[in-house]
Amino acid sequence: MANEFKHLVLVKFKEDVVVEDILKGLEKLVQEMDIVKSFVWGKDDESHEMLTQGYTHAIIMTFNSKEDYKTFASHPNHVEFSSTFATVIDKAVLLDFPVVSVKAPAN
Amino acid sequence: MANEFKHLVLVKFKEDVVVEDILKGLEKLVQEMDIVKSFVWGKDDESHEMLTQGYTHAIIMTFNSKEDYKTFASHPNHVEFSSTFATVIDKAVLLDFPVVSVKAPAN
Repeated sequence: MANEFKHLVLVKFKEDVVVEDILKGLEKLVQEMDIVKSFVWGKDDESHEMLTQGYTHAIIMTFNSKEDYKTFASHPNHVEFSSTFATVIDKAVLLDFPVVSVKAPAN
Repeated sequence: MANEFKHLVLVKFKEDVVVEDILKGLEKLVQEMDIVKSFVWGKDDESHEMLTQGYTHAIIMTFNSKEDYKTFASHPNHVEFSSTFATVIDKAVLLDFPVVSVKAPAN
């Protein structure tokens, strides 16, 4: 079986941004696209600035394959969302990788 | 049901570090501790330096609760691993957060 593939985004939003609205937009995008296998997010609640480097939110999407991720990434809905997303963030870091599952459940 | 809790680490290793050995050490640590529900990692294979900001590896551990994470984090084995880990990294960012699962499978 091919490795699952994850699209991981850490974000620091600009001040005054209504994060809930952004996440709702992302939720809508993901729910409309069956190709996204799973989508979870979270807000750091430890707040060690030295460790988080200012990033507050993590977004994790999982796909059945890298090909599925590529299809998602180039879909017009995602491209449109990304261009909006870019306007509301202070900074972000993105990692895209085949998943090595050491301990189940695999994801 | 309480939210699952994730411990997420993005890493850029120092040059000359044998990353496989580090990951094996982490695997051993995790396998010895039942409290860790799942553990996956991955190496970015897109390599857009502008997007990854130099980070190459993502490590994601999932726990049944924040309490379980806290127990793990303060365990002597983890403390020992962390002190070694600190010597092999160029930089890292850590986020610890209750998981909001938008789309299943919940992980």
